[in-house]
Amino acid sequence: MNVSFCAKLASLRAQKSSVLCVGLDPDPAKLPKHILSRYPTGEAVEHFCTSIIEATAPFAIAFKINFAFFEALGDRGLSIMRTVLSSIPPGVLTIADAKRGDIGNSARFYASSVFDDLGFDSVTLSPYMGQDSLTPFLNYPGKCSFVLARTSNPGGNDFQTLNVAGQPLYSHVAKAVSGWAQDQPGTAGFVVGATDVSSLAQLRLELPEAPFLIPGVGSQGGSAADVMKAAGSGPVLINSSRAIIYASDALDFAQKASEQAQITQNELGS
Amino acid sequence: MNVSFCAKLASLRAQKSSVLCVGLDPDPAKLPKHILSRYPTGEAVEHFCTSIIEATAPFAIAFKINFAFFEALGDRGLSIMRTVLSSIPPGVLTIADAKRGDIGNSARFYASSVFDDLGFDSVTLSPYMGQDSLTPFLNYPGKCSFVLARTSNPGGNDFQTLNVAGQPLYSHVAKAVSGWAQDQPGTAGFVVGATDVSSLAQLRLELPEAPFLIPGVGSQGGSAADVMKAAGSGPVLINSSRAIIYASDALDFAQKASEQAQITQNELGS
Repeated sequence: MNVSFCAKLASLRAQKSSVLCVGLDPDPAKLPKHILSRYPTGEAVEHFCTSIIEATAPFAIAFKINFAFFEALGDRGLSIMRTVLSSIPPGVLTIADAKRGDIGNSARFYASSVFDDLGFDSVTLSPYMGQDSLTPFLNYPGKCSFVLARTSNPGGNDFQTLNVAGQPLYSHVAKAVSGWAQDQPGTAGFVVGATDVSSLAQLRLELPEAPFLIPGVGSQGGSAADVMKAAGSGPVLINSSRAIIYASDALDFAQKASEQAQITQNELGS
Repeated sequence: MNVSFCAKLASLRAQKSSVLCVGLDPDPAKLPKHILSRYPTGEAVEHFCTSIIEATAPFAIAFKINFAFFEALGDRGLSIMRTVLSSIPPGVLTIADAKRGDIGNSARFYASSVFDDLGFDSVTLSPYMGQDSLTPFLNYPGKCSFVLARTSNPGGNDFQTLNVAGQPLYSHVAKAVSGWAQDQPGTAGFVVGATDVSSLAQLRLELPEAPFLIPGVGSQGGSAADVMKAAGSGPVLINSSRAIIYASDALDFAQKASEQAQITQNELGS
Protein backbone atom coordinates (compact mmCIF):
# COMPACT_ATOMS: atom_id res chain seq x y z
CA MET A 1 0.00 0.00 0.00
CA ASN A 2 1.41 3.36 -1.01
CA VAL A 3 1.45 6.08 1.60
CA SER A 4 -0.45 9.00 0.12
CA PHE A 5 1.35 12.20 -0.84
CA CYS A 6 -0.87 14.12 1.60
CA ALA A 7 0.05 11.78 4.46
CA LYS A 8 3.77 12.28 3.74
CA LEU A 9 3.21 16.03 3.53
CA ALA A 10 1.34 16.16 6.86
CA SER A 11 3.99 14.07 8.57
CA LEU A 12 6.87 16.22 7.28
CA ARG A 13 5.05 19.43 8.17
CA ALA A 14 4.61 18.27 11.76
CA GLN A 15 8.13 16.89 12.04
CA LYS A 16 9.98 19.91 10.61
CA SER A 17 7.50 22.69 11.50
CA SER A 18 7.72 23.80 7.90
CA VAL A 19 5.59 24.23 4.78
CA LEU A 20 8.53 25.48 2.70
CA CYS A 21 9.26 24.20 -0.80
CA VAL A 22 12.51 25.46 -2.35
CA GLY A 23 12.27 25.95 -6.10
CA LEU A 24 15.36 25.12 -8.15
CA ASP A 25 15.41 27.40 -11.21
CA PRO A 26 19.13 27.42 -12.00
CA ASP A 27 19.67 30.24 -14.49
CA PRO A 28 23.37 30.13 -15.47
CA ALA A 29 23.48 33.94 -15.72
CA LYS A 30 22.59 34.21 -12.03
CA LEU A 31 24.95 31.62 -10.59
CA PRO A 32 27.86 32.69 -8.37
CA LYS A 33 30.76 33.76 -10.56
CA HIS A 34 33.29 31.61 -8.73
CA ILE A 35 31.27 28.50 -9.71
CA LEU A 36 30.91 29.59 -13.32
CA SER A 37 34.64 30.22 -13.61
CA ARG A 38 35.51 26.83 -12.13
CA TYR A 39 33.10 24.55 -14.04
CA PRO A 40 31.48 24.20 -17.47
CA THR A 41 27.79 25.28 -17.43
CA GLY A 42 26.27 21.84 -16.82
CA GLU A 43 28.60 21.03 -13.95
CA ALA A 44 28.12 24.54 -12.55
CA VAL A 45 24.35 24.02 -12.44
CA GLU A 46 24.84 20.62 -10.81
CA HIS A 47 27.24 21.98 -8.20
CA PHE A 48 25.03 24.99 -7.49
CA CYS A 49 21.84 22.93 -7.08
CA THR A 50 23.38 20.24 -4.88
CA SER A 51 24.94 22.94 -2.67
CA ILE A 52 21.61 24.76 -2.35
CA ILE A 53 19.85 21.49 -1.52
CA GLU A 54 22.35 20.62 1.18
CA ALA A 55 22.14 24.13 2.67
CA THR A 56 18.36 24.49 2.66
CA ALA A 57 17.11 20.92 3.27
CA PRO A 58 16.91 21.36 7.06
CA PHE A 59 14.22 24.04 6.56
CA ALA A 60 12.34 22.65 3.54
CA ILE A 61 9.90 19.78 3.17
CA ALA A 62 10.00 19.80 -0.63
CA PHE A 63 12.16 20.77 -3.60
CA LYS A 64 10.65 21.79 -6.91
CA ILE A 65 12.81 21.21 -9.98
CA ASN A 66 12.03 23.44 -12.95
CA PHE A 67 12.51 21.38 -16.13
CA ALA A 68 13.08 24.45 -18.37
CA PHE A 69 16.51 25.12 -16.89
CA PHE A 70 17.68 21.52 -17.30
CA GLU A 71 16.32 21.12 -20.82
CA ALA A 72 18.28 24.26 -21.69
CA LEU A 73 21.49 22.38 -20.79
CA GLY A 74 21.03 20.23 -23.90
CA ASP A 75 21.69 16.50 -24.24
CA ARG A 76 23.09 16.14 -20.74
CA GLY A 77 20.27 18.05 -19.05
CA LEU A 78 18.24 15.04 -17.92
CA SER A 79 21.30 13.28 -16.56
CA ILE A 80 22.28 16.41 -14.61
CA MET A 81 18.72 16.66 -13.28
CA ARG A 82 18.94 13.05 -12.16
CA THR A 83 22.14 13.79 -10.21
CA VAL A 84 20.55 16.84 -8.58
CA LEU A 85 17.45 14.81 -7.72
CA SER A 86 19.52 12.06 -6.15
CA SER A 87 21.12 14.60 -3.79
CA ILE A 88 17.74 15.46 -2.24
CA PRO A 89 17.61 13.75 1.17
CA PRO A 90 15.11 10.91 1.58
CA GLY A 91 11.94 12.07 3.27
CA VAL A 92 11.92 15.42 1.49
CA LEU A 93 9.27 15.57 -1.26
CA THR A 94 10.14 16.24 -4.89
CA ILE A 95 8.11 18.12 -7.50
CA ALA A 96 8.73 17.85 -11.25
CA ASP A 97 7.82 21.36 -12.39
CA ALA A 98 7.25 20.39 -16.01
CA LYS A 99 3.71 21.71 -16.67
CA ARG A 100 2.82 18.76 -18.88
CA GLY A 101 -0.44 18.56 -20.78
CA ASP A 102 -0.96 16.31 -23.80
CA ILE A 103 -3.45 13.73 -25.11
CA GLY A 104 -3.85 10.50 -23.13
CA ASN A 105 -1.46 8.44 -25.25
CA SER A 106 1.38 10.96 -24.86
CA ALA A 107 0.46 11.70 -21.23
CA ARG A 108 1.10 8.08 -20.30
CA PHE A 109 4.68 8.41 -21.55
CA TYR A 110 5.23 11.71 -19.74
CA ALA A 111 3.80 10.24 -16.52
CA SER A 112 5.99 7.17 -16.73
CA SER A 113 9.07 9.32 -17.32
CA VAL A 114 8.39 11.59 -14.35
CA PHE A 115 7.12 9.00 -11.85
CA ASP A 116 8.64 5.63 -12.87
CA ASP A 117 11.94 6.63 -14.45
CA LEU A 118 12.89 9.81 -12.58
CA GLY A 119 10.98 8.87 -9.41
CA PHE A 120 9.48 12.27 -8.57
CA ASP A 121 6.77 12.38 -5.87
CA SER A 122 4.69 14.92 -7.77
CA VAL A 123 4.39 16.93 -10.97
CA THR A 124 2.84 20.14 -12.27
CA LEU A 125 0.27 19.81 -15.09
CA SER A 126 -1.64 22.14 -17.40
CA PRO A 127 -5.41 21.47 -17.58
CA TYR A 128 -6.21 22.91 -21.01
CA MET A 129 -6.52 19.52 -22.80
CA GLY A 130 -8.91 18.09 -20.22
CA GLN A 131 -9.48 14.80 -18.49
CA ASP A 132 -7.61 12.31 -20.70
CA SER A 133 -4.49 14.51 -20.49
CA LEU A 134 -4.53 14.34 -16.67
CA THR A 135 -5.79 10.87 -15.70
CA PRO A 136 -2.58 9.00 -16.65
CA PHE A 137 -0.93 11.07 -13.89
CA LEU A 138 -3.87 11.00 -11.44
CA ASN A 139 -3.89 7.20 -11.65
CA TYR A 140 -0.57 6.88 -9.83
CA PRO A 141 -1.43 6.16 -6.18
CA GLY A 142 0.92 7.82 -3.72
CA LYS A 143 1.84 10.57 -6.22
CA CYS A 144 0.38 14.05 -6.51
CA SER A 145 -0.40 16.03 -9.66
CA PHE A 146 -0.50 19.78 -9.08
CA VAL A 147 -2.77 21.10 -11.82
CA LEU A 148 -2.42 24.78 -12.76
CA ALA A 149 -5.48 26.63 -11.43
CA ARG A 150 -4.72 30.27 -10.57
CA THR A 151 -1.11 31.13 -11.39
CA SER A 152 0.90 34.02 -10.00
CA ASN A 153 2.47 35.32 -13.22
CA PRO A 154 1.05 38.41 -15.00
CA GLY A 155 -0.52 36.19 -17.70
CA GLY A 156 -2.45 34.37 -14.97
CA ASN A 157 -5.05 37.11 -15.41
CA ASP A 158 -5.50 36.54 -19.15
CA PHE A 159 -7.67 33.39 -19.23
CA GLN A 160 -7.85 31.89 -15.73
CA THR A 161 -10.15 34.58 -14.35
CA LEU A 162 -12.61 34.58 -17.28
CA ASN A 163 -16.21 34.33 -16.15
CA VAL A 164 -17.70 30.91 -16.91
CA ALA A 165 -21.34 30.69 -15.80
CA GLY A 166 -20.75 32.99 -12.85
CA GLN A 167 -17.49 31.51 -11.63
CA PRO A 168 -13.88 32.09 -12.70
CA LEU A 169 -12.38 29.53 -15.08
CA TYR A 170 -9.77 28.46 -12.50
CA SER A 171 -12.50 27.51 -10.04
CA HIS A 172 -14.33 25.53 -12.70
CA VAL A 173 -11.06 23.76 -13.61
CA ALA A 174 -10.15 22.92 -10.01
CA LYS A 175 -13.56 21.48 -9.19
CA ALA A 176 -13.71 19.41 -12.39
CA VAL A 177 -10.22 17.97 -11.84
CA SER A 178 -11.04 17.12 -8.21
CA GLY A 179 -14.06 15.22 -9.44
CA TRP A 180 -11.98 13.23 -11.92
CA ALA A 181 -9.61 12.21 -9.12
CA GLN A 182 -12.24 11.17 -6.61
CA ASP A 183 -11.35 7.47 -6.94
CA GLN A 184 -7.73 8.26 -6.05
CA PRO A 185 -7.99 10.68 -3.11
CA GLY A 186 -5.07 13.03 -2.63
CA THR A 187 -3.61 12.61 -6.12
CA ALA A 188 -5.07 15.92 -7.41
CA GLY A 189 -3.47 19.07 -6.11
CA PHE A 190 -3.50 22.60 -7.50
CA VAL A 191 -1.10 25.42 -8.23
CA VAL A 192 -2.62 28.53 -6.67
CA GLY A 193 -0.52 31.70 -6.68
CA ALA A 194 0.18 33.73 -3.55
CA THR A 195 -0.37 36.97 -5.46
CA ASP A 196 -4.18 36.70 -5.42
CA VAL A 197 -4.99 35.96 -1.79
CA SER A 198 -8.76 36.24 -2.18
CA SER A 199 -8.80 33.62 -4.97
CA LEU A 200 -6.67 31.38 -2.78
CA ALA A 201 -9.10 31.72 0.13
CA GLN A 202 -12.07 31.05 -2.15
CA LEU A 203 -10.47 27.93 -3.65
CA ARG A 204 -9.64 26.64 -0.18
CA LEU A 205 -13.30 26.98 0.80
CA GLU A 206 -14.29 24.98 -2.28
CA LEU A 207 -11.57 22.32 -1.89
CA PRO A 208 -10.77 22.03 1.81
CA GLU A 209 -8.63 18.90 1.54
CA ALA A 210 -6.76 19.35 -1.76
CA PRO A 211 -3.01 19.93 -1.59
CA PHE A 212 -2.09 23.41 -2.84
CA LEU A 213 1.32 24.32 -4.25
CA ILE A 214 1.58 28.05 -3.71
CA PRO A 215 4.24 30.01 -5.61
CA GLY A 216 4.62 33.77 -5.56
CA VAL A 217 5.91 34.25 -2.03
CA GLY A 218 9.25 36.01 -2.37
CA SER A 219 10.33 37.42 -5.74
CA GLN A 220 6.77 37.58 -7.09
CA GLY A 221 5.25 39.21 -3.94
CA GLY A 222 2.49 38.08 -1.51
CA SER A 223 2.87 38.34 2.30
CA ALA A 224 3.57 35.12 4.20
CA ALA A 225 1.02 35.76 6.93
CA ASP A 226 -1.78 36.62 4.50
CA VAL A 227 -1.04 33.58 2.36
CA MET A 228 -0.98 31.15 5.28
CA LYS A 229 -4.25 32.55 6.59
CA ALA A 230 -5.91 32.19 3.17
CA ALA A 231 -4.53 28.67 2.71
CA GLY A 232 -6.39 27.61 5.86
CA SER A 233 -5.81 24.26 7.49
CA GLY A 234 -5.58 22.16 4.31
CA PRO A 235 -2.36 20.67 2.90
CA VAL A 236 0.03 23.26 1.47
CA LEU A 237 3.50 23.69 0.11
CA ILE A 238 4.69 27.29 -0.15
CA ASN A 239 7.28 27.64 -2.88
CA SER A 240 10.05 30.18 -2.88
CA SER A 241 12.68 30.05 -5.60
CA ARG A 242 14.70 33.13 -6.47
CA ALA A 243 14.54 34.86 -3.05
CA ILE A 244 16.29 31.84 -1.53
CA ILE A 245 18.56 30.39 -4.19
CA TYR A 246 19.91 33.76 -5.32
CA ALA A 247 20.18 35.30 -1.84
CA SER A 248 23.88 35.85 -2.65
CA ASP A 249 26.01 35.31 -5.74
CA ALA A 250 29.27 35.39 -3.82
CA LEU A 251 31.28 32.70 -2.02
CA ASP A 252 28.67 32.69 0.77
CA PHE A 253 25.78 31.77 -1.57
CA ALA A 254 24.96 28.51 0.21
CA GLN A 255 25.13 30.09 3.68
CA LYS A 256 22.89 32.98 2.59
CA ALA A 257 20.43 30.56 0.94
CA SER A 258 20.33 28.58 4.17
CA GLU A 259 19.67 31.74 6.21
CA GLN A 260 16.97 32.91 3.81
CA ALA A 261 15.29 29.48 3.84
CA GLN A 262 15.21 29.59 7.64
CA ILE A 263 13.81 33.13 7.62
CA THR A 264 11.11 32.09 5.14
CA GLN A 265 10.29 28.97 7.15
CA ASN A 266 9.84 31.13 10.27
CA GLU A 267 7.76 33.76 8.49
CA LEU A 268 5.44 31.09 7.13
CA GLY A 269 5.12 29.23 10.42
CA SER A 270 3.60 25.81 10.07
CA MET B 1 15.82 39.07 -42.74
CA ASN B 2 14.18 35.80 -41.73
CA VAL B 3 11.77 34.22 -44.18
CA SER B 4 8.48 33.80 -42.31
CA PHE B 5 7.20 30.35 -41.40
CA CYS B 6 4.07 31.06 -43.46
CA ALA B 7 6.11 31.95 -46.53
CA LYS B 8 8.07 28.69 -46.24
CA LEU B 9 4.82 26.80 -45.74
CA ALA B 10 3.19 28.37 -48.80
CA SER B 11 6.24 27.69 -50.94
CA LEU B 12 6.46 24.02 -49.87
CA ARG B 13 2.73 23.52 -50.34
CA ALA B 14 2.93 24.79 -53.91
CA GLN B 15 6.13 22.91 -54.69
CA LYS B 16 5.06 19.51 -53.33
CA SER B 17 1.27 19.77 -53.76
CA SER B 18 0.94 18.72 -50.15
CA VAL B 19 -0.31 19.93 -46.79
CA LEU B 20 0.74 16.75 -45.00
CA CYS B 21 2.60 16.75 -41.71
CA VAL B 22 3.77 13.34 -40.49
CA GLY B 23 3.68 13.00 -36.70
CA LEU B 24 6.46 10.97 -35.10
CA ASP B 25 5.05 9.34 -31.93
CA PRO B 26 7.42 6.37 -31.59
CA ASP B 27 5.80 4.05 -29.02
CA PRO B 28 8.26 1.17 -28.50
CA ALA B 29 5.36 -1.29 -28.04
CA LYS B 30 4.17 -0.54 -31.57
CA LEU B 31 7.48 -0.69 -33.44
CA PRO B 32 8.14 -3.50 -35.91
CA LYS B 33 9.34 -6.57 -34.02
CA HIS B 34 12.35 -7.12 -36.26
CA ILE B 35 13.66 -3.68 -35.24
CA LEU B 36 13.03 -4.27 -31.53
CA SER B 37 14.84 -7.60 -31.66
CA ARG B 38 17.84 -6.10 -33.43
CA TYR B 39 18.39 -2.92 -31.39
CA PRO B 40 18.07 -1.64 -27.81
CA THR B 41 14.99 0.57 -27.35
CA GLY B 42 16.68 3.94 -27.97
CA GLU B 43 18.40 2.77 -31.15
CA ALA B 44 15.18 1.06 -32.28
CA VAL B 45 13.30 4.36 -31.96
CA GLU B 46 16.06 6.16 -33.84
CA HIS B 47 16.16 3.58 -36.64
CA PHE B 48 12.36 3.51 -36.90
CA CYS B 49 11.99 7.30 -37.04
CA THR B 50 14.78 7.87 -39.55
CA SER B 51 13.35 5.12 -41.78
CA ILE B 52 9.85 6.62 -41.59
CA ILE B 53 11.24 10.07 -42.39
CA GLU B 54 13.14 8.80 -45.43
CA ALA B 55 10.07 6.89 -46.67
CA THR B 56 7.48 9.64 -46.19
CA ALA B 57 9.46 12.85 -46.83
CA PRO B 58 8.55 12.95 -50.56
CA PHE B 59 4.88 13.40 -49.60
CA ALA B 60 5.18 15.53 -46.44
CA ILE B 61 5.98 19.20 -45.97
CA ALA B 62 6.48 18.90 -42.20
CA PHE B 63 7.39 16.43 -39.47
CA LYS B 64 6.06 16.80 -35.94
CA ILE B 65 8.20 15.28 -33.20
CA ASN B 66 6.31 14.34 -30.02
CA PHE B 67 8.59 15.04 -27.05
CA ALA B 68 6.81 12.57 -24.72
CA PHE B 69 8.19 9.56 -26.57
CA PHE B 70 11.77 10.84 -26.51
CA GLU B 71 11.70 11.96 -22.88
CA ALA B 72 10.52 8.42 -22.06
CA LEU B 73 13.85 7.13 -23.45
CA GLY B 74 15.64 8.62 -20.44
CA ASP B 75 18.99 10.39 -20.39
CA ARG B 76 19.73 9.72 -24.07
CA GLY B 77 16.30 10.85 -25.27
CA LEU B 78 17.28 14.35 -26.33
CA SER B 79 20.35 13.13 -28.14
CA ILE B 80 18.27 10.54 -30.02
CA MET B 81 15.75 13.25 -30.89
CA ARG B 82 18.59 15.38 -32.26
CA THR B 83 19.72 12.53 -34.52
CA VAL B 84 16.16 11.98 -35.76
CA LEU B 85 15.76 15.72 -36.35
CA SER B 86 19.00 15.87 -38.33
CA SER B 87 17.70 13.19 -40.71
CA ILE B 88 14.78 15.41 -41.78
CA PRO B 89 15.65 16.76 -45.24
CA PRO B 90 16.32 20.50 -45.53
CA GLY B 91 13.27 22.37 -46.77
CA VAL B 92 10.83 20.22 -44.80
CA LEU B 93 9.42 22.04 -41.76
CA THR B 94 9.86 20.74 -38.22
CA ILE B 95 7.46 21.01 -35.28
CA ALA B 96 8.50 20.48 -31.65
CA ASP B 97 5.33 18.96 -30.22
CA ALA B 98 6.17 19.80 -26.61
CA LYS B 99 3.05 21.71 -25.45
CA ARG B 100 5.09 24.12 -23.34
CA GLY B 101 3.49 26.68 -21.06
CA ASP B 102 5.30 28.29 -18.14
CA ILE B 103 5.97 31.76 -16.69
CA GLY B 104 8.03 34.18 -18.77
CA ASN B 105 11.36 33.46 -17.10
CA SER B 106 11.05 29.69 -17.68
CA ALA B 107 9.47 30.16 -21.12
CA ARG B 108 12.61 31.96 -22.33
CA PHE B 109 14.68 28.88 -21.51
CA TYR B 110 12.21 26.50 -23.18
CA ALA B 111 12.10 28.73 -26.27
CA SER B 112 15.87 28.89 -26.50
CA SER B 113 16.13 25.12 -26.18
CA VAL B 114 13.57 24.41 -28.90
CA PHE B 115 14.53 27.16 -31.37
CA ASP B 116 18.22 28.00 -30.75
CA ASP B 117 19.63 24.69 -29.52
CA LEU B 118 17.49 22.10 -31.30
CA GLY B 119 16.69 24.35 -34.25
CA PHE B 120 13.01 23.49 -34.73
CA ASP B 121 10.96 25.70 -37.07
CA SER B 122 7.92 25.66 -34.79
CA VAL B 123 6.54 24.47 -31.47
CA THR B 124 3.23 23.63 -29.80
CA LEU B 125 2.27 25.68 -26.72
CA SER B 126 -0.45 25.60 -24.07
CA PRO B 127 -2.19 28.96 -23.48
CA TYR B 128 -3.40 28.50 -19.88
CA MET B 129 -0.72 30.72 -18.28
CA GLY B 130 -1.36 33.63 -20.63
CA GLN B 131 0.68 36.22 -22.48
CA ASP B 132 4.02 36.15 -20.66
CA SER B 133 4.18 32.36 -21.12
CA LEU B 134 3.84 32.73 -24.92
CA THR B 135 5.68 35.93 -25.91
CA PRO B 136 9.20 34.49 -25.47
CA PHE B 137 8.26 32.07 -28.28
CA LEU B 138 6.24 34.57 -30.35
CA ASN B 139 9.21 36.93 -30.36
CA TYR B 140 11.28 34.61 -32.59
CA PRO B 141 10.88 35.96 -36.14
CA GLY B 142 10.72 33.23 -38.75
CA LYS B 143 9.43 30.67 -36.25
CA CYS B 144 5.82 29.66 -35.58
CA SER B 145 4.17 28.86 -32.25
CA PHE B 146 1.10 26.66 -32.59
CA VAL B 147 -0.99 27.47 -29.53
CA LEU B 148 -3.55 24.87 -28.42
CA ALA B 149 -7.01 26.20 -29.26
CA ARG B 150 -9.51 23.40 -30.00
CA THR B 151 -7.88 19.99 -29.57
CA SER B 152 -9.11 16.70 -31.02
CA ASN B 153 -8.79 14.48 -27.92
CA PRO B 154 -11.87 13.59 -25.82
CA GLY B 155 -10.76 16.04 -23.08
CA GLY B 156 -10.81 18.83 -25.66
CA ASN B 157 -14.49 19.16 -24.77
CA ASP B 158 -13.88 19.66 -21.04
CA PHE B 159 -12.72 23.29 -20.87
CA GLN B 160 -12.07 24.55 -24.41
CA THR B 161 -15.75 24.79 -25.34
CA LEU B 162 -16.88 26.55 -22.15
CA ASN B 163 -19.01 29.59 -22.86
CA VAL B 164 -17.13 32.82 -22.14
CA ALA B 165 -19.32 35.87 -22.80
CA GLY B 166 -21.11 34.18 -25.65
CA GLN B 167 -18.12 32.60 -27.35
CA PRO B 168 -16.24 29.35 -26.69
CA LEU B 169 -13.05 29.61 -24.65
CA TYR B 170 -10.92 28.36 -27.59
CA SER B 171 -12.12 31.24 -29.76
CA HIS B 172 -11.37 33.75 -27.01
CA VAL B 173 -7.89 32.22 -26.61
CA ALA B 174 -7.11 32.23 -30.33
CA LYS B 175 -8.13 35.85 -30.81
CA ALA B 176 -6.23 37.05 -27.74
CA VAL B 177 -3.05 35.24 -28.80
CA SER B 178 -3.32 36.62 -32.34
CA GLY B 179 -3.52 40.09 -30.86
CA TRP B 180 -0.38 39.53 -28.78
CA ALA B 181 1.52 38.47 -31.90
CA GLN B 182 0.45 41.31 -34.14
CA ASP B 183 3.92 42.88 -34.14
CA GLN B 184 5.41 39.60 -35.40
CA PRO B 185 3.00 38.52 -38.15
CA GLY B 186 2.86 34.79 -38.82
CA THR B 187 4.49 33.70 -35.57
CA ALA B 188 1.16 32.74 -33.92
CA GLY B 189 -0.51 29.60 -35.22
CA PHE B 190 -3.12 27.36 -33.64
CA VAL B 191 -3.78 23.70 -33.02
CA VAL B 192 -7.33 23.06 -34.21
CA GLY B 193 -8.54 19.46 -34.27
CA ALA B 194 -10.07 17.83 -37.32
CA THR B 195 -12.72 16.17 -35.17
CA ASP B 196 -14.84 19.32 -34.80
CA VAL B 197 -15.16 20.63 -38.34
CA SER B 198 -17.63 23.41 -37.48
CA SER B 199 -15.27 24.87 -34.86
CA LEU B 200 -12.48 24.71 -37.42
CA ALA B 201 -14.57 26.58 -40.00
CA GLN B 202 -15.58 29.19 -37.43
CA LEU B 203 -11.98 29.78 -36.30
CA ARG B 204 -10.87 30.13 -39.92
CA LEU B 205 -13.47 32.84 -40.43
CA GLU B 206 -12.16 34.67 -37.37
CA LEU B 207 -8.46 34.21 -38.23
CA PRO B 208 -8.19 33.98 -42.02
CA GLU B 209 -4.39 34.22 -42.17
CA ALA B 210 -3.22 32.28 -39.11
CA PRO B 211 -1.42 28.97 -39.70
CA PHE B 212 -3.44 26.03 -38.38
CA LEU B 213 -1.91 22.72 -37.33
CA ILE B 214 -4.75 20.23 -37.68
CA PRO B 215 -4.44 16.83 -36.00
CA GLY B 216 -7.17 14.21 -35.86
CA VAL B 217 -7.15 13.09 -39.49
CA GLY B 218 -6.46 9.37 -39.46
CA SER B 219 -6.54 7.48 -36.15
CA GLN B 220 -8.65 10.08 -34.39
CA GLY B 221 -11.21 10.45 -37.23
CA GLY B 222 -12.29 13.47 -39.35
CA SER B 223 -12.72 13.24 -43.18
CA ALA B 224 -9.99 14.77 -45.34
CA ALA B 225 -12.39 16.54 -47.70
CA ASP B 226 -14.48 18.08 -44.90
CA VAL B 227 -11.38 19.24 -43.05
CA MET B 228 -9.78 20.86 -46.10
CA LYS B 229 -13.04 22.65 -46.91
CA ALA B 230 -13.36 23.96 -43.35
CA ALA B 231 -9.70 25.02 -43.26
CA GLY B 232 -10.37 27.31 -46.22
CA SER B 233 -7.59 29.03 -48.11
CA GLY B 234 -5.41 29.96 -45.10
CA PRO B 235 -2.13 28.28 -44.19
CA VAL B 236 -2.54 24.71 -42.89
CA LEU B 237 -0.61 21.63 -41.94
CA ILE B 238 -2.68 18.48 -41.61
CA ASN B 239 -1.06 16.07 -39.21
CA SER B 240 -1.37 12.31 -39.39
CA SER B 241 0.66 10.16 -37.01
CA ARG B 242 -0.44 6.64 -36.22
CA ALA B 243 -2.29 5.89 -39.47
CA ILE B 244 0.96 6.47 -41.36
CA ILE B 245 3.80 5.43 -39.09
CA TYR B 246 2.10 2.21 -37.92
CA ALA B 247 0.65 1.27 -41.32
CA SER B 248 2.56 -2.01 -40.94
CA ASP B 249 4.66 -3.53 -38.15
CA ALA B 250 6.35 -6.02 -40.45
CA LEU B 251 9.46 -5.83 -42.63
CA ASP B 252 7.56 -3.61 -45.08
CA PHE B 253 6.80 -0.92 -42.46
CA ALA B 254 8.66 1.83 -44.33
CA GLN B 255 7.11 0.93 -47.68
CA LYS B 256 3.60 0.84 -46.18
CA ALA B 257 4.19 4.16 -44.38
CA SER B 258 5.30 5.65 -47.69
CA GLU B 259 2.19 4.35 -49.47
CA GLN B 260 -0.10 5.60 -46.67
CA ALA B 261 1.58 9.02 -46.71
CA GLN B 262 1.00 9.26 -50.46
CA ILE B 263 -2.65 8.16 -50.06
CA THR B 264 -3.17 10.78 -47.34
CA GLN B 265 -1.46 13.46 -49.42
CA ASN B 266 -3.79 12.67 -52.33
CA GLU B 267 -6.90 12.58 -50.15
CA LEU B 268 -6.06 15.97 -48.70
CA GLY B 269 -5.18 17.55 -52.03
CA SER B 270 -3.39 20.86 -51.70
